[in-house]
Amino acid sequence: MLIKKPTVIVDKRLTVHKIERMAKKAKSSSVRFRPHFKTHHSADIGEWFRPFDVSNIAVSSVGMAKYFASHGWNDIMICIPANLLEIDELNQLSKEVALHVLVDSVETSKFLCEKIKHDTKVWIEIDVGYRRTGVPTERMDQILKIAKHIQNGQNLSLIGVITHAGHSYHARSLHEIRSIYTETTSRMKIVQETLSSAGFQDLEVSIGDTPTCSLIEKFEAPISEIRPGNFVFYDLTQLNIGSCQENEISMTVACPVISKAAERNELVIYGGGASLSKEHYVSDRQTVYGLVALPEDGKKRTHAVNDTFVASVSQEHGKIIGPSEFVNDIKIGDVLMILPVHACQTTLLHKEYQTYAEEILTAYQPSIS
Amino acid sequence: MLIKKPTVIVDKRLTVHKIERMAKKAKSSSVRFRPHFKTHHSADIGEWFRPFDVSNIAVSSVGMAKYFASHGWNDIMICIPANLLEIDELNQLSKEVALHVLVDSVETSKFLCEKIKHDTKVWIEIDVGYRRTGVPTERMDQILKIAKHIQNGQNLSLIGVITHAGHSYHARSLHEIRSIYTETTSRMKIVQETLSSAGFQDLEVSIGDTPTCSLIEKFEAPISEIRPGNFVFYDLTQLNIGSCQENEISMTVACPVISKAAERNELVIYGGGASLSKEHYVSDRQTVYGLVALPEDGKKRTHAVNDTFVASVSQEHGKIIGPSEFVNDIKIGDVLMILPVHACQTTLLHKEYQTYAEEILTAYQPSIS
Repeated sequence: MLIKKPTVIVDKRLTVHKIERMAKKAKSSSVRFRPHFKTHHSADIGEWFRPFDVSNIAVSSVGMAKYFASHGWNDIMICIPANLLEIDELNQLSKEVALHVLVDSVETSKFLCEKIKHDTKVWIEIDVGYRRTGVPTERMDQILKIAKHIQNGQNLSLIGVITHAGHSYHARSLHEIRSIYTETTSRMKIVQETLSSAGFQDLEVSIGDTPTCSLIEKFEAPISEIRPGNFVFYDLTQLNIGSCQENEISMTVACPVISKAAERNELVIYGGGASLSKEHYVSDRQTVYGLVALPEDGKKRTHAVNDTFVASVSQEHGKIIGPSEFVNDIKIGDVLMILPVHACQTTLLHKEYQTYAEEILTAYQPSIS
Repeated sequence: MLIKKPTVIVDKRLTVHKIERMAKKAKSSSVRFRPHFKTHHSADIGEWFRPFDVSNIAVSSVGMAKYFASHGWNDIMICIPANLLEIDELNQLSKEVALHVLVDSVETSKFLCEKIKHDTKVWIEIDVGYRRTGVPTERMDQILKIAKHIQNGQNLSLIGVITHAGHSYHARSLHEIRSIYTETTSRMKIVQETLSSAGFQDLEVSIGDTPTCSLIEKFEAPISEIRPGNFVFYDLTQLNIGSCQENEISMTVACPVISKAAERNELVIYGGGASLSKEHYVSDRQTVYGLVALPEDGKKRTHAVNDTFVASVSQEHGKIIGPSEFVNDIKIGDVLMILPVHACQTTLLHKEYQTYAEEILTAYQPSIS
């Protein structure tokens, strides 16, 4: 591990182990494993999925779909309601790969009917309680209307119904996760059966959120596909939910110490909002922007140091508060490993990551053109 | 203005106007204007400063210094305590440009003494109350010790003392800003005079924070340099402090509408944490990730729409809540202009911006190598 400035460090062995475990879990439940690549959005990390027979992926934007298509992925779902303004890009992509898009409105369904020029797979997004996108399960009339519109599209095939139970991120126990999962499954089952009675048979059901996919051991009908993303790294948000153990977090940001105020038990790292992001949580009335570990022989990290955390960040500065014994031991020029609050938001700020073996991993970067 | 996906839109005319105004203010106070380029970190926007005789700049990282050096800037201050692990890069830069670095510890001063190979200008960072980096003004013994170490460095010249009164960001009135400014000035004066009595004469005094530089009309001795950065765009944080008016915010993120839940008075835009950042504030018990304006003829934006705001964001989704009249008027496929909570954090997520005239502005992107 060679560090000069804030650098995302990925523990490759641990990451591959988690990918294998999730792939096996999907296999044992006979559901398709369609990992969401938005968390790592790296073509290099994408390759780590191939030995486990992964060939279907999910992404969060058209740009990211184009990036992974150019890296040999040919079954790609864009997990956000189709953006009408990118119709040219969707038409281009649907020529090149098996393209899956989401719709949650009659407007978008009609638009795609008219404008999509090549075979495109469509999923109706269902809202099972998160209240972001998707048609609420109470609006079955709307779901049926959308299904009929899609049926009219010459180049559209209605494949299934999909949901993201994002409210599981507010859960704080296995019990809560399980009850969200049970309700999600039963709501999706009703939607699937109602559509079936209306003539839309054999529709698939796709779910995807890291808490559920981490904690539920066995997926049952009607679930046919899972789309976890964050598990590839995990982070403090997932740790707080209970989706993972601390030693399962496989991404950290290595940051040099640049200043020290021993009299206040504070250290300042080069590593702030520009490297960690501004994601934080409050624990015991302290705002936490990250926990702090130490590198071990440049090959791994220690556990998080007790009672030590990133307490504030500005663009390039991160202020760490810790016990005096810890602060006194650290010198300016040392490197600390910061466990991120939300790995997805942290990786957005980096166009490359590094493994402990100093392998450089490149990531997708959006551009205007 | 051509929008397909979340795009940072810069109002060039307004931005140039603010640059001119700040340059004139500095001139009328006879202080050097050293704009902090971290907010825009764009070589193209950098050029907009040249007609106003700006030749000295501040940046927030060694990487950003290298970027602007390669774009013809040759007097560059890196506004963060010098990072020992980047000594090779500092030595390279100091060969090419007039390089200014900050120190706030004896350790770093000694290290630079030994390792810096070419003329480098050094500023001692002073903490006037923000409690991030800098030596607290109460620790004059420490400040003198650092000054002596710098004096011993063959390639180091002690130029001045510098502070960032970042606590001004918590102010909420002109009165509070003025009292922080007065205290900053008087503390820096004592430091300067004490150093002078100890033989360190004619030291400069540099201050820099957008609230102070926006609201104080005339800078007086001992201030010799100002380093505002955020004013180039402004944002809702500065609006809430009172540093600017809403119509002075010259950067927005244009985002397509992709979903609508009229029954809940909600719209969803393609534009979330990946495009806006996760910065937010709480107003009237509502969490706000951005305010919402409309484009006007693709050449400007309207005022922020009343009672309408981005209420939550995930990676690519932003949920907007507004009055039913507004929500009903907006169609899927329309474009909304989001006023950012913190422009510096938003621009970090984009490698290009666009002007209303569709000029593409490129920005610095950090990399590992």
